[in-house]
Amino acid sequence: MLIVPEREIADLMTREAAFDAVEKVFAAMASGDAYNFPVVREAIGHEDALYGFKGGFDRAGLTLGLKAGGYWPNNLEKRQIINHQSTVFLFDPDTGKAKAMVGGNLLTALRTAAASSVSIKHLARKDARVIGMVGAGHQAKFQLRAALETGNFEKVIGWNFHPEMLPNLEEVASEAGLPFEAVDLDGMTEADVIITITSSFEAILQADHVSPGTHIACMGTDTKGKQEVETALLGKARVFTDEVAQSVSIGEAQHAIQDLTIHIEDVAQLGAVINGTNPGRTSDDEITLFDGTGVGLQDLAVAAAVVDLAVEKGIAIEVDF
Amino acid sequence: MLIVPEREIADLMTREAAFDAVEKVFAAMASGDAYNFPVVREAIGHEDALYGFKGGFDRAGLTLGLKAGGYWPNNLEKRQIINHQSTVFLFDPDTGKAKAMVGGNLLTALRTAAASSVSIKHLARKDARVIGMVGAGHQAKFQLRAALETGNFEKVIGWNFHPEMLPNLEEVASEAGLPFEAVDLDGMTEADVIITITSSFEAILQADHVSPGTHIACMGTDTKGKQEVETALLGKARVFTDEVAQSVSIGEAQHAIQDLTIHIEDVAQLGAVINGTNPGRTSDDEITLFDGTGVGLQDLAVAAAVVDLAVEKGIAIEVDF
Repeated sequence: MLIVPEREIADLMTREAAFDAVEKVFAAMASGDAYNFPVVREAIGHEDALYGFKGGFDRAGLTLGLKAGGYWPNNLEKRQIINHQSTVFLFDPDTGKAKAMVGGNLLTALRTAAASSVSIKHLARKDARVIGMVGAGHQAKFQLRAALETGNFEKVIGWNFHPEMLPNLEEVASEAGLPFEAVDLDGMTEADVIITITSSFEAILQADHVSPGTHIACMGTDTKGKQEVETALLGKARVFTDEVAQSVSIGEAQHAIQDLTIHIEDVAQLGAVINGTNPGRTSDDEITLFDGTGVGLQDLAVAAAVVDLAVEKGIAIEVDF
Repeated sequence: MLIVPEREIADLMTREAAFDAVEKVFAAMASGDAYNFPVVREAIGHEDALYGFKGGFDRAGLTLGLKAGGYWPNNLEKRQIINHQSTVFLFDPDTGKAKAMVGGNLLTALRTAAASSVSIKHLARKDARVIGMVGAGHQAKFQLRAALETGNFEKVIGWNFHPEMLPNLEEVASEAGLPFEAVDLDGMTEADVIITITSSFEAILQADHVSPGTHIACMGTDTKGKQEVETALLGKARVFTDEVAQSVSIGEAQHAIQDLTIHIEDVAQLGAVINGTNPGRTSDDEITLFDGTGVGLQDLAVAAAVVDLAVEKGIAIEVDF
């Protein structure tokens, strides 16, 4: 039994390893080699916490297990620890024995960032130069940092409901040596790639804020009721997702499905593009939209990758379980 | 983070501690202080394994977490390890952080045995002297051993589809200094308490194999399609269970509900008897029947108890997670 504590993840895990792990597991999902289990998510009636399990099995990567944890909204104020708390447990698919336990907090941020980056690699125009961020919170920094590694971006533009948080984006842009500009939502028409990463419950980005040829990664909507973009935008776009069932029920596509702007057949798996069974972008003026809902297999994939790295570097704690 | 490996459980956990933990959590379930989450159970398409998660939260005992694992049918033959493999993970309900990891194999056997014993304590006649076992496999030994501690039994009788396994029961009876007798199913009329613990898919015990005043604990049925006793027996009995929703869907009561012998209102929580809000047995010639389906909260309760014992004895492995 191997243990990789949360405090080790930052030094071990790379954005490259997260990207590779997520790309591979999206492909395995689309080819039918990997699937996610039903998600358990419970308001437990204690500390206003949401707690649950996201499990899955990847037959190709032989990764089996779950992420357990959730959201404890009082953690930061009461205890100076982060509100999102999760742990990944990996099992040996040959025997059913517990195999590894891995801190899941930073991994969750990295796998979410990797997902939008994988979508940019496979769906954005190769000549994309301006990246637009809608949202400037903690997770936005992860998304932007990972995204900047996927292409030859020359400029970052950003909008946030609370403009005082925009320096978060500026910081990441300048790490990469890029200029940053705060814009109105209208100004997003300049972007070739847009990432939305908010906790909004109503559409922020409208269809006319987006130019032809743009790739949009909607990363904030993971619950019934949340919404980041106008449904008309999904109507104008070719829509891709990590998992169709989640996309149409708790993802960004839920609203466009409900108001009949699109139908379930209009939502394709990003993994199919990776595998080459879906052509992905077919022209330079198409709008592509990735609805990133977040699946357990992503967590398992990055956890398995970090266990390998920890073993390689002699950092994994071995317990005779 | 505390770790209690499987190999330590046998020396740490007592049948008394398992009994107390299960009795307490059944009571908490009936009073609304504890609840089980939806069960995830997946045929993963590898090694013919069934894998899943049983989680729950006990607000009274502040026990939160899950049992993960399942059934790997080739383990014993291929690898000389047992086919049922599980691990319990406990979380801190105040923060969402992982708190303990505990080997779940022996605990599962002990909590299942404790459940029928709790039912015997609260539902069997106080003058019960003969205990009858239907089933004589590995788990039957656990059930019988625990049951014999609940009362003043003077004799064990037993039946099994494969009679060559009956010495399993004889062994446990003689440990307790009691005579054992192999009987036909007709012979079960001699029993004051009957435990069924088989993997049968059709009724074994018929209504006329059971005398008035008997308490029956049906412990084998935990899946759609399994069945141990004739539905007419449930019609003649007062029916109790660990969890009503499981009892009527995957427990022994599923068939009697389907053929309308009983209705969901006829199935009561054993916890309500423990709490005193249900009178339980009201006469010496009533037949009482406990449908033990097995819930995640039982696993969490015995795991929490064993962690306390391991800490007390300085055996828990502490990992800075």
